[in-house]
Amino acid sequence: MVNIKSEEIYQLEKQYRISLINSLIGYRSLNLLGTISNDGITNLCIISSAFHLGANPPLIGMVIRPEREHNDTLTNIKETGQYTLNNVLPEWYMQAHQTSASYPSSVSEFDACGFHKHYIREFKPPFVKESNIRIGLELREVIDMEINGTTIVIGEIIHILTEDNLIAEDGTLDHAKAKTMTVAGLDTYYLPQPVGQLSYAKPGIEPHLQGDHANHQA
Amino acid sequence: MVNIKSEEIYQLEKQYRISLINSLIGYRSLNLLGTISNDGITNLCIISSAFHLGANPPLIGMVIRPEREHNDTLTNIKETGQYTLNNVLPEWYMQAHQTSASYPSSVSEFDACGFHKHYIREFKPPFVKESNIRIGLELREVIDMEINGTTIVIGEIIHILTEDNLIAEDGTLDHAKAKTMTVAGLDTYYLPQPVGQLSYAKPGIEPHLQGDHANHQA
Repeated sequence: MVNIKSEEIYQLEKQYRISLINSLIGYRSLNLLGTISNDGITNLCIISSAFHLGANPPLIGMVIRPEREHNDTLTNIKETGQYTLNNVLPEWYMQAHQTSASYPSSVSEFDACGFHKHYIREFKPPFVKESNIRIGLELREVIDMEINGTTIVIGEIIHILTEDNLIAEDGTLDHAKAKTMTVAGLDTYYLPQPVGQLSYAKPGIEPHLQGDHANHQA
Repeated sequence: MVNIKSEEIYQLEKQYRISLINSLIGYRSLNLLGTISNDGITNLCIISSAFHLGANPPLIGMVIRPEREHNDTLTNIKETGQYTLNNVLPEWYMQAHQTSASYPSSVSEFDACGFHKHYIREFKPPFVKESNIRIGLELREVIDMEINGTTIVIGEIIHILTEDNLIAEDGTLDHAKAKTMTVAGLDTYYLPQPVGQLSYAKPGIEPHLQGDHANHQA
């Protein structure tokens, strides 16, 4: 077993440290973040920092870093107050990864990386047509983090665009059926296999499998 | 295709809405959060809200909800200023899920759910002995979210306890080799399979596979 301590972390070679720290917490939510400027220029970038903040009101948080291409995104979100999150599928995850390249502000990653825009009424930013689980959000809060210059953006879910057969009876979206991908670290993409759906945990009752996944035990 | 709009989301049956909203963003980082009170009572709870905030300084954020068992955790973190995050493995993910049950404050979920405490020098809270990727954190910031009563906790990584053979040459932790699990929604657990590790994206250069995963293409 190794124990890498704080002072050693700071002494690691920069790219090695970035890879290590980014991969620590395991698999992460993976989405394409779609925005549009007031001038009508669309922007698309892959993010792995979305987190569930709460169900009532329905809120999602995400971290925006101060790099240039992300600033376009943040500027767009502040301008229009709206943005979309779209899941990533195996047939085109390489194009999704490509949206992280530093394109000039005048270029839309939708066009540069081969994605189609899907618009709905009374909502400005485009969804990704190729995705099958798409979320439309309205900006609720911007938290500027003094500790490292990042921005935590909180949005309320106001549209859920998906296919009927991807919603299970209990309301859960079936990401295995949807073929949603996940990422660990900076650049390694994964497709998860279901192991088990567990019943609500109560003290004194042994944890056990429930529902459709009862026969998928590891 | 369905479009579930804001007003419809609010009208959904409560448990259905919770399941739907929790599952929207896809797969999530899955960890056991270990703490200890000043009186020496340990606490362990499963969380899926950890997010990468930045690599320099090395920071992880997470969301703590205002429920009772989580309050023990938050109180402990504020008291000692330290906590641990530990990955979840297939051999014992059911016990990990069981830590979400509402045990009385006097009961340690380490004991109730069958986990062993692993202590290191000059660090108060216990790590989970059964995990193979373990992070020791020091509290840096507490953000009380007025919008829904949750708390965002920001910590700095000051210990990384893992096995030498789980760190790839570039610094990335190999979660597939470690058998780290992930969760989607409230209660469905997954084991991801690697699909591809992609090269750093640059404008005008086609995205392509790199490294050990080049033969794992989907």
